[in-house]
Amino acid sequence: MHWAKILGVAVGAAALLGLGIILGHFAIPKATDPQASSTSDSQDLDLAILDSVMGQLDASRIRENLRELSKEPHVATSPRDEALVQLLLGRWKDSATGLDSAKTSEYTVLLSYPSAEQPNSVEVVDPSGGLLVYANRGSEEDFKHLEAQRIKLEGTIALTRYGGVGRGAKAINAAKHGVVGVLVYTDPGDINDGKNSPSETFPNSWGLPPSGVERGSYFEYFGDPLTPYLPAHPSSFRLDLNNISGFPPIPTQPIGFEDAKDLLCNLTGPSAPGSWQGALGCEYKLGPGFEPNGSFPADSEVKVSVHNRLELRTSSNVLGIIQGAVEPDRYVIYGNHRDSWVHGAVDPSSGTAVLLEISRVLGTLLKKGAWRPRRTIILASWGAEEFGLIGSTEFTEEFLSKLQERTVAYINVDISVFSNATLRAQGTPPAQSVIFSATKEISAPGSSGLSIYDNWIRYTNRTSPVYGLVPKLGTLGAGSDYASFVHFLGITSMDLAYTYDQSKTSARIYPTYHTAFDTFDYVEKFLDPDFSSHQAVARTAGSVLLRLSDSLFLPLNVSDYSETLQSFLQAAQDDLGTLLEKQNISLGPLVTAVEKFKTAAAALVQHILTLQKSSPKVRMVNDQLMLLERAFLNPRAFPDERYYSHVLWAPNTASVATFPGLANACARAQEINSGPEAWAEVQRQLSIVVTALEGAAATLAPVADL
Amino acid sequence: MHWAKILGVAVGAAALLGLGIILGHFAIPKATDPQASSTSDSQDLDLAILDSVMGQLDASRIRENLRELSKEPHVATSPRDEALVQLLLGRWKDSATGLDSAKTSEYTVLLSYPSAEQPNSVEVVDPSGGLLVYANRGSEEDFKHLEAQRIKLEGTIALTRYGGVGRGAKAINAAKHGVVGVLVYTDPGDINDGKNSPSETFPNSWGLPPSGVERGSYFEYFGDPLTPYLPAHPSSFRLDLNNISGFPPIPTQPIGFEDAKDLLCNLTGPSAPGSWQGALGCEYKLGPGFEPNGSFPADSEVKVSVHNRLELRTSSNVLGIIQGAVEPDRYVIYGNHRDSWVHGAVDPSSGTAVLLEISRVLGTLLKKGAWRPRRTIILASWGAEEFGLIGSTEFTEEFLSKLQERTVAYINVDISVFSNATLRAQGTPPAQSVIFSATKEISAPGSSGLSIYDNWIRYTNRTSPVYGLVPKLGTLGAGSDYASFVHFLGITSMDLAYTYDQSKTSARIYPTYHTAFDTFDYVEKFLDPDFSSHQAVARTAGSVLLRLSDSLFLPLNVSDYSETLQSFLQAAQDDLGTLLEKQNISLGPLVTAVEKFKTAAAALVQHILTLQKSSPKVRMVNDQLMLLERAFLNPRAFPDERYYSHVLWAPNTASVATFPGLANACARAQEINSGPEAWAEVQRQLSIVVTALEGAAATLAPVADL
Repeated sequence: MHWAKILGVAVGAAALLGLGIILGHFAIPKATDPQASSTSDSQDLDLAILDSVMGQLDASRIRENLRELSKEPHVATSPRDEALVQLLLGRWKDSATGLDSAKTSEYTVLLSYPSAEQPNSVEVVDPSGGLLVYANRGSEEDFKHLEAQRIKLEGTIALTRYGGVGRGAKAINAAKHGVVGVLVYTDPGDINDGKNSPSETFPNSWGLPPSGVERGSYFEYFGDPLTPYLPAHPSSFRLDLNNISGFPPIPTQPIGFEDAKDLLCNLTGPSAPGSWQGALGCEYKLGPGFEPNGSFPADSEVKVSVHNRLELRTSSNVLGIIQGAVEPDRYVIYGNHRDSWVHGAVDPSSGTAVLLEISRVLGTLLKKGAWRPRRTIILASWGAEEFGLIGSTEFTEEFLSKLQERTVAYINVDISVFSNATLRAQGTPPAQSVIFSATKEISAPGSSGLSIYDNWIRYTNRTSPVYGLVPKLGTLGAGSDYASFVHFLGITSMDLAYTYDQSKTSARIYPTYHTAFDTFDYVEKFLDPDFSSHQAVARTAGSVLLRLSDSLFLPLNVSDYSETLQSFLQAAQDDLGTLLEKQNISLGPLVTAVEKFKTAAAALVQHILTLQKSSPKVRMVNDQLMLLERAFLNPRAFPDERYYSHVLWAPNTASVATFPGLANACARAQEINSGPEAWAEVQRQLSIVVTALEGAAATLAPVADL
Repeated sequence: MHWAKILGVAVGAAALLGLGIILGHFAIPKATDPQASSTSDSQDLDLAILDSVMGQLDASRIRENLRELSKEPHVATSPRDEALVQLLLGRWKDSATGLDSAKTSEYTVLLSYPSAEQPNSVEVVDPSGGLLVYANRGSEEDFKHLEAQRIKLEGTIALTRYGGVGRGAKAINAAKHGVVGVLVYTDPGDINDGKNSPSETFPNSWGLPPSGVERGSYFEYFGDPLTPYLPAHPSSFRLDLNNISGFPPIPTQPIGFEDAKDLLCNLTGPSAPGSWQGALGCEYKLGPGFEPNGSFPADSEVKVSVHNRLELRTSSNVLGIIQGAVEPDRYVIYGNHRDSWVHGAVDPSSGTAVLLEISRVLGTLLKKGAWRPRRTIILASWGAEEFGLIGSTEFTEEFLSKLQERTVAYINVDISVFSNATLRAQGTPPAQSVIFSATKEISAPGSSGLSIYDNWIRYTNRTSPVYGLVPKLGTLGAGSDYASFVHFLGITSMDLAYTYDQSKTSARIYPTYHTAFDTFDYVEKFLDPDFSSHQAVARTAGSVLLRLSDSLFLPLNVSDYSETLQSFLQAAQDDLGTLLEKQNISLGPLVTAVEKFKTAAAALVQHILTLQKSSPKVRMVNDQLMLLERAFLNPRAFPDERYYSHVLWAPNTASVATFPGLANACARAQEINSGPEAWAEVQRQLSIVVTALEGAAATLAPVADL
């Protein structure tokens, strides 16, 4: 006897890299010659131009951009994605509002798409699949807990919920314990403040409807999987498909919480711990298998069928250029990705809508001859970000040397508006001061009368030993296209957005993230009805961009790195000092190196104050400011961490908030079975950091010193 | 019965890194405030100053420098080496002839010294050592030939002669075949044009006396063996002694040809091939063991006892600085090592004598206020070069970022005079034009009336497709302190010297190289009696230095790289094309990349001609010229080749004179037992080169292009 309740069949064009696709039975209706103008070497930021730009950035135009950008699904390399390439090219080549030039660059990259002929499916079947278990967030600890409950994981299917660990980690952890398939759902407790009924969710609130499925890349690295460190040109060397690392080791499929409820609320076995419970309206049990009196026969198993195909596809970046009047060889790069999972009104079109409005305003000034930046501005619309930051990574691989030589900073605005409460900014420390300067001069949306800065500080702040209470800048992981700029190239980078009040919701992210419900209507109804938050982000990003491109002295405060280094050092001393002492590893050289850095940074900041604006030394000083971030790179520091070379911002998977190489090496050295070579690696990582800090201090020290 | 003829006992302070030391019974008696002066942004090379410098460089002062520098042995870190540190510091801090500043920097490095208590020895003993074989130059082919003669190598001692393969390779090759000890001698056929008797050698000619022993480092890498990629500060991470790679795997000992003759001319066994014969005055046989009627009992064996000790020692670099007037953040570095094996009159003191004379002349102009360079000049006296380029490598590790950001070029003058016939120059292609410009303006020593250039072209030339007949610039291996500058940092580098007429002698190098006979008397009597060749090198190096430090536009002709790339491409097409085609690997992308480079380089050279001297674009163009060499670096290209990152100049151990990664990968792929992954590596190396060339072309292309 064969029977099956088909829970869902994949449809549509959206896809996950590697494995997995939509499961559900929802249906969503579906700017002149730059060399000719006379220029002055001392050209500086023009506040009148800045004011003019701020004034012209128009909320209603951003709204119309967003409506157009999000009107159809535009997953990477789809016909609509390519149509948007043409839309961007058209805007940037417009004779009245366009840039100096615009072009596309194409890469041939490995992407994963569902099969129309063989849709993916999740079925509950007679014993021919795997017994279902509930594994919470799919962390290593979660699977260990299941084993401690004497639940045999071999051959099971693990139902997990988003959050806690990264997508890819769930499958990797599961496979280690013998699990043969993973389902991932979004628990209403994590995304909807517990609301789980259609009447409480979109279109009745911003909540995720029960059928919403959160897609996402399950690839562990970023960049094209076949061409690490090389641009994915058609002729480039490609890894053999059998040699790719970073793909999920077992089939992995996201589902909506409606389907998850059918499964989870019918499980048998011991109760899940309190922290594992969610908001599906039943007590979560661990399994394995279903309870006798539930919706399914007690011996039912779950069968996950994934038929995604890996395909080489051509993905385009669109690049637009405004040539610098004085320093055309210094680049300020501003980018966002273009590809979405479905309609992607928020992710990424809210960012692209802002990008297009900034380019219109700047392009208009440019075409009128009213303005040309001191430095070159590069605007970028990256392809295939959702599949693993692919377009931006290939770009950095192709132009590695040139970008490292010349790039002043990278500004990323991906999702521009998560919601409308406050600015959210992430970046490396030299970006802090320019974001502060910009936001102090722009009014926050709403009727508070506060600046963006003053509004921001109410939501997210910290006490700086130097400045007192300031808004808190987040750090940059690998969540968007800044990743290869900061980690691979060592370029000062930042990410800007408006977001919600975290005291009012526990939502992991805006609820329709990566689902088919991320639509224009959703944005207009719930996130930013008057588009004033989009406008606020456009003004913030526009102001930061202009300050970086036009200021005579680069507005990068390198001494803001001193705080970071001091706090990393403090954490190392407090949390690792005793441990290291026992191993005869001294933090003394690190103390000295941090002091050297602080002294050199402070002296350089003072030196800049003494310089005349017309001084030929301006460019020298600017080079020091620009290149500081590069001095923290060591391509040999973390040979197993693809692209990660920045010794301060590489992934820190340990518990101590200090230099990541040191933190990780210490954690490994403390593991059972670690040998003396693990302590040698601690010492090596310490020397790598010390050398990088001394090198960075040397970059900031007076240029004729040795 | 125990008997032994002790052939030699080590004496003296000279040592070999890792293993081995002198064997022999000879005895040799034993430059104002830079910021204050008014400067003009357009300051350019001043030909009157250049003339004045050329005129002031004084042969007799070089002679006196050399006499002082070479009067005592000054092996690295010896008291005399440290005394010379003080001598240099004194000169460079002199108030009338010194530089702006001078200082030392110290590194704690692993060096190998002989034991005074337990001298090294080579003995012929009753059977308790190893049977002696003659292994020619100790190449892999040589050992294979011995095995083909059915000579069992297991447990033997191999007598080899210098030349053919590097020092370290002899022991590595030998050990692979079971050999347990290696002796290395200098054959009079290779060094003395066959002369082998005391009456025909020094002090009666420039020939090497029979007792002369050529020392040298047998370490396979360069830099401090314990701290790869990290500066050897006292607190730096150090490899465990058991984990060091690159040291000879078996005891290795150099001996003089006097002792070698005793051994080699008593061997039994089949005759060595004709190409293995040398000038010891007997027929060379292969062994194993001695012939019955010779000087030793037929069952005699050879015992090699090496008791060198590895010690952590402090080695100093001396750095002297002349601050640049206009661009203090651009560095021209000029260096030579200071340490010798014994007296080291030629190696390295002939170079140091020139360095000191250049610094005196420049220092005098500086202190008088008559001159200050446009860019900063850094003069360097490196420590511990003979043990593996250690001082210069540690310097590049310590100041990696800063040096990569700012260094225009590195000029190396190690041995300044091998002999007095002609200039010998090695360098990367952008160095060619400045060397040509300098040497066209300087008279060659002697009465020819020719310029150094016109004299040089008579000895060493090639036909350039662009320029016609020109002197031939050699390429840079890892023979002196330029190695880490070019291979690790990607800095345009060159090495300058005067040398002998290769048509008049087949000597591998000047005969007393690395022996105790390399003395002041030797130089004065045979190499350069009037020191006019030393003066010629001082003028050449001084002129190149001034042109690099003072010219408004950097005198680096980047389009000279086009010839190199074209010739590498041609070799790939001619010698690998068919092979690659069979593997479906196309050279098409390489052809395109070379074309792109050539076009961009030619356009940039044209662009420079159109620029006004006062143009603010000068620095931009100079940055392109300076940074071109960096664009060829890829630290991930050759993970097994320590420090080698330059995709054009990494070691090419294959027979095709093309891009080294491609050449080596093709050679490996053609080996028996190579699999498809070897061909994948060929494709990977091809992509690495293509990406580097495209990146280099992008560095040269107009700066606002993308």
